[in-house]
Amino acid sequence: MLYFTCIVSISAQNRVGQNGTHRIILPNLPDYKTLKCDFHIHTVFSDGLVWPSIRVDEALRCGLDAIALTDHIEYLPFKNDINTGHNKSYEIADEYAKGKNLIVIPGTEITRGMPPGHFNALFIKDADKLVTNDVMEALKEAHAQGAFVFWDHPAWPAQCPSGEAKLFDIHKELLKRGYIQGIEIANGEANTYSDESFDIMLKYGLTPMCNSDIHGLGEWEWNKLGHRPVTLVFTKEKSSESIKEALIAGRTVVYYKNYLIGKEELLKSLFQSSLIVEAHYSFNQTIATLKMQNNSDVNYLCENRGTYSFLSNPYFFSIPAQSTLIILVKTSDRLNSFDLDLLVHNLVIAPGKGTMVKLHVQPQDQK
Amino acid sequence: MLYFTCIVSISAQNRVGQNGTHRIILPNLPDYKTLKCDFHIHTVFSDGLVWPSIRVDEALRCGLDAIALTDHIEYLPFKNDINTGHNKSYEIADEYAKGKNLIVIPGTEITRGMPPGHFNALFIKDADKLVTNDVMEALKEAHAQGAFVFWDHPAWPAQCPSGEAKLFDIHKELLKRGYIQGIEIANGEANTYSDESFDIMLKYGLTPMCNSDIHGLGEWEWNKLGHRPVTLVFTKEKSSESIKEALIAGRTVVYYKNYLIGKEELLKSLFQSSLIVEAHYSFNQTIATLKMQNNSDVNYLCENRGTYSFLSNPYFFSIPAQSTLIILVKTSDRLNSFDLDLLVHNLVIAPGKGTMVKLHVQPQDQK
Amino acid sequence: MLYFTCIVSISAQNRVGQNGTHRIILPNLPDYKTLKCDFHIHTVFSDGLVWPSIRVDEALRCGLDAIALTDHIEYLPFKNDINTGHNKSYEIADEYAKGKNLIVIPGTEITRGMPPGHFNALFIKDADKLVTNDVMEALKEAHAQGAFVFWDHPAWPAQCPSGEAKLFDIHKELLKRGYIQGIEIANGEANTYSDESFDIMLKYGLTPMCNSDIHGLGEWEWNKLGHRPVTLVFTKEKSSESIKEALIAGRTVVYYKNYLIGKEELLKSLFQSSLIVEAHYSFNQTIATLKMQNNSDVNYLCENRGTYSFLSNPYFFSIPAQSTLIILVKTSDRLNSFDLDLLVHNLVIAPGKGTMVKLHVQPQDQK
Amino acid sequence: MLYFTCIVSISAQNRVGQNGTHRIILPNLPDYKTLKCDFHIHTVFSDGLVWPSIRVDEALRCGLDAIALTDHIEYLPFKNDINTGHNKSYEIADEYAKGKNLIVIPGTEITRGMPPGHFNALFIKDADKLVTNDVMEALKEAHAQGAFVFWDHPAWPAQCPSGEAKLFDIHKELLKRGYIQGIEIANGEANTYSDESFDIMLKYGLTPMCNSDIHGLGEWEWNKLGHRPVTLVFTKEKSSESIKEALIAGRTVVYYKNYLIGKEELLKSLFQSSLIVEAHYSFNQTIATLKMQNNSDVNYLCENRGTYSFLSNPYFFSIPAQSTLIILVKTSDRLNSFDLDLLVHNLVIAPGKGTMVKLHVQPQDQK
Repeated sequence: MLYFTCIVSISAQNRVGQNGTHRIILPNLPDYKTLKCDFHIHTVFSDGLVWPSIRVDEALRCGLDAIALTDHIEYLPFKNDINTGHNKSYEIADEYAKGKNLIVIPGTEITRGMPPGHFNALFIKDADKLVTNDVMEALKEAHAQGAFVFWDHPAWPAQCPSGEAKLFDIHKELLKRGYIQGIEIANGEANTYSDESFDIMLKYGLTPMCNSDIHGLGEWEWNKLGHRPVTLVFTKEKSSESIKEALIAGRTVVYYKNYLIGKEELLKSLFQSSLIVEAHYSFNQTIATLKMQNNSDVNYLCENRGTYSFLSNPYFFSIPAQSTLIILVKTSDRLNSFDLDLLVHNLVIAPGKGTMVKLHVQPQDQK
Repeated sequence: MLYFTCIVSISAQNRVGQNGTHRIILPNLPDYKTLKCDFHIHTVFSDGLVWPSIRVDEALRCGLDAIALTDHIEYLPFKNDINTGHNKSYEIADEYAKGKNLIVIPGTEITRGMPPGHFNALFIKDADKLVTNDVMEALKEAHAQGAFVFWDHPAWPAQCPSGEAKLFDIHKELLKRGYIQGIEIANGEANTYSDESFDIMLKYGLTPMCNSDIHGLGEWEWNKLGHRPVTLVFTKEKSSESIKEALIAGRTVVYYKNYLIGKEELLKSLFQSSLIVEAHYSFNQTIATLKMQNNSDVNYLCENRGTYSFLSNPYFFSIPAQSTLIILVKTSDRLNSFDLDLLVHNLVIAPGKGTMVKLHVQPQDQK
Repeated sequence: MLYFTCIVSISAQNRVGQNGTHRIILPNLPDYKTLKCDFHIHTVFSDGLVWPSIRVDEALRCGLDAIALTDHIEYLPFKNDINTGHNKSYEIADEYAKGKNLIVIPGTEITRGMPPGHFNALFIKDADKLVTNDVMEALKEAHAQGAFVFWDHPAWPAQCPSGEAKLFDIHKELLKRGYIQGIEIANGEANTYSDESFDIMLKYGLTPMCNSDIHGLGEWEWNKLGHRPVTLVFTKEKSSESIKEALIAGRTVVYYKNYLIGKEELLKSLFQSSLIVEAHYSFNQTIATLKMQNNSDVNYLCENRGTYSFLSNPYFFSIPAQSTLIILVKTSDRLNSFDLDLLVHNLVIAPGKGTMVKLHVQPQDQK
Repeated sequence: MLYFTCIVSISAQNRVGQNGTHRIILPNLPDYKTLKCDFHIHTVFSDGLVWPSIRVDEALRCGLDAIALTDHIEYLPFKNDINTGHNKSYEIADEYAKGKNLIVIPGTEITRGMPPGHFNALFIKDADKLVTNDVMEALKEAHAQGAFVFWDHPAWPAQCPSGEAKLFDIHKELLKRGYIQGIEIANGEANTYSDESFDIMLKYGLTPMCNSDIHGLGEWEWNKLGHRPVTLVFTKEKSSESIKEALIAGRTVVYYKNYLIGKEELLKSLFQSSLIVEAHYSFNQTIATLKMQNNSDVNYLCENRGTYSFLSNPYFFSIPAQSTLIILVKTSDRLNSFDLDLLVHNLVIAPGKGTMVKLHVQPQDQK
């Protein structure tokens, strides 16, 4: 692993694929718990390749807090062998998850050609009632059941050959009616992130979502992505109700391939919560030795945009996951405190746009 | 290791510290060989801690092409035990290196307080003749012997407590006389990179240098830096004469902590030579699948500044060392060719300034 | 990894759990192909947790040559959801495996309390016809269909609380009638090896078997065992017929937790086929430098029982998997050839009994 | 890494070559501290390739408790450059080690052709006084200075082309006079272990020794051997005096390439001290689940020679270094306690002879 600048200690190994585990470690925020959630998952009850209980174990190995099994309503390639209704995968998983500290949220996938494409409905009461030819009726029913609905992978090339997500009239109608509240900015199975989905999210105030959409085995998929793609949900407590509240309030962040994507204040808070920062001056020098201990799984990519240049390295650096980075900052004077102004490129707040973060540093004199 | 976007295959493991080897792999350029050189090394003949032959073996393990042992003239802490002249470490190493495909260049370090600090003289004929109280005389003698002289670690905190390298009058005089031809932008032992040294280099047309300045064991030092710090010298052939010609011509690049620092055209050429780029369109889509195989040890940090956005990931990505990265590029049409405009942040051409690179892509239709 | 004695080069990394693969590499024999087979596997069509196609992909990742999906006839916990007959998992896997160079053999598991316990029937024509209350009838029908039948995990603690496998009268009757031809010496899911099963195999001339009996995900199970437990089948060609012929002929070896268990001549041949042996004498010495390159995944555990002692190490050594070991042999004279007499402890030919192997060495004089 | 039987957890990685460290971890005994010592080391003051201070740092990285720098008296290839007496390397190292918790013992190597070969003298008062043509005089002087003297690598092929160590008349005379108290059974630099040296040690009641004899860099040598070869010295406290007392009393064990060689009671105690053993019975079974947590760096190679056979694996198994092994023991009844009788092959008490160890197990009923 080549780091940009001097590493003091590497306290954690890469967890991807090691001992078959993909555990995700990210900090809580000062005001919220950070729940790792995957709301788009398939089982043998539609076109997935595992029994629902495997999805529970897989989630536990990833350290997730909540999942929704969202088997297709309309696409059932195994129906000659399995055809016992659209609520079964939820019921099996929910039963299996009892006592395991994992929340299972009822859900399903309404699966149509484009437009309007695919939609996941969470917190539904009865998936069987969503069976109807008219997609508008299906979404109306979901809405009536109190569902939180999000648009799946709008840029999925199988339905969007340009990869450029776009709104059709039916989407505008659905948005107008309040039938869609979220949108997948990124999706693991489709290997798809989309600037245009991001723009739609921003324009319509939708909740940003990212899910694995796993059909096969996570073990075989997620090494390629670096980690399981998940939606981070920021809640007051770990409960189904709190998750629903946060989804409706739009308090989520996309965690996809080492990017964090979403609202600026949440990204800043995640970044600050990931780091323990210490600094000191040595001897008669005006060079601050800055230690940044990154306790998260995210490798932060930082561009120095501030006043002070570094003695340890040029203007660009990364703070590797689960590592401690030392940077030497030239401050010309021995300051009681100073700010680093960093453009963090993998905290993405809009297409093509990273986040400016101010890192406040209070150096100690060396004993 | 967390990557930014989908990795097809990782053909090489991190070599740092594995089986005790630190072999550096970087491509040749179309017009030049890329020689990996370390021109600042110490042995027991001044204040280093190993016999000269170890430095030869160490260099061979790192895959270096040339070294200079540059023991201090003035600082000899072991002189009560070892005091047989300033040419001995070179003579021993040169003899030991015979038949081993490593060039050993005679050198020494003229070691004074600041100003003017320390200077390395390469290609000297007799180091003993540089023994004099007057530093100007020492450098004049080096010049007379046909030496290539560079200023060592101008920002070394022990001599520069602000870490901000600066020119004193004596440096201006030395530059005027042509006694200094190069400058260390970065130095391993001092853990020092300097924007100000970089500015001096640019302003005075000096040759950029980077060396390990190793005193102890490389095995114990270089893991912390990611690799051995070296000066890349671009030559027509692997010979002492060619290296001298290239150093005088300023045809070098600093390779330090995964940064490449130097002249724009050399950095661009290194980047292009590191990559094998292939692309194709699938089916009826206008999305190009772009494969970038990085055959170098450098993890390239790229910001997309061009017209086309990506389906696989947001605008920022890295091309990990010795890996193949796949990126999906949305081109709206099926194009015969297109350019990616990348700002590569670890190809540093001036303080705070990366390199804009145009990557030309010619997609094939998929069979 | 701590080796016993000097390692020249390690040509292969541990493959277990790396990049999600468990590929098994073992040599062919001079006269036979070595087919890696797993004849005891479950899917959602009984109490397994994955769709049959996952079992095909799992086998391909392990480098297997043949599998049998052997869902229980009598134990169907998911029958409320899936209940379309006992041949379905075979049919789905066979279809999915087309063109993938993996043989899928029809099979099933006859599942009764002890006695007589569980039996796998391979090469059956119609599993549905084995549905009957009378276990003797079920095995008679399997026999009539031309099945190869083996007794599963006779020492499984759930049915054998002492872990000491034993023959009941019904087993003797089954053996007498020729209804049982093989026996599992070891079984992955049951974490069970049994000396008593081994004794029964030897006494009755049964074919030794070892299978994963996987119900969940192999990725989550096999790291703990070191590798996927398999039956090695030695055939003239890679075909279903050849496998059947070899099973009936008893030409198999158990590969379980780095042990090879079975007939002496097969074990010796596997050992010899795994190694490339070279030796030379140096200078005026009578010490042979012996290089043993082990191209298999098996770490061979060897006790020196011969005339010559070693200069590199005491009498016991291992030849690590995918590695080259160098041993210095003191032969008193410079011999044209000599034999090492080794007791290889993980080539197990009877309970508590390793295999004596003669390694013939022909040293060359060093140039 | 292929293990023999089910591994619960691997609490430690291989430390060899990782981050440039070779730290050795072995347990203390109930009655003694286990001091890791290397009494045969070279520096630039004879034919070694590093300054004495590097030997101190190297030892600290290996976790050693004591070293002796034993530069040759008679072989001084660098004497044209370094020639300031035979006590200098000790003096430099001793000064450098102050405050670093490493004992530096004065020593030297008396270096003659065979017979009698090479001898290391420890705890000497003045190495310069050992300079004499007559080797008997040199050893007499060492003896007079109160030295502990051991015979180095008697089987070293450069002096013993058969690799079969043997006593010449002069050795018998030296033994008779009490001038030799120890003997190297194994030596790292010479890559030499010797059954014959072992026999001499046993016959004459000498202290078994094993040292690195390092000349170059340990980092480049010890990966090949698995770990740094050392002499384990069992003392009441960590002091120079205690080491001398233990050496004279013969209370040492050779630690070489994962073998422990020496007196039976010390080997048994090391083995028992390395392990934490727990066991329980499950449910209605008579199978004890035996957990063996190995907190040492030694991979113990065990042959089951007792009454009880295993359900988890055949008769031979290893207890990997820094790992926990689970074995299922069939005890026929639920016993309050039982003994495992193990032949541990890498606890070597005589040429070709491992150690019989009784492991006492007290199973708990499972809650």
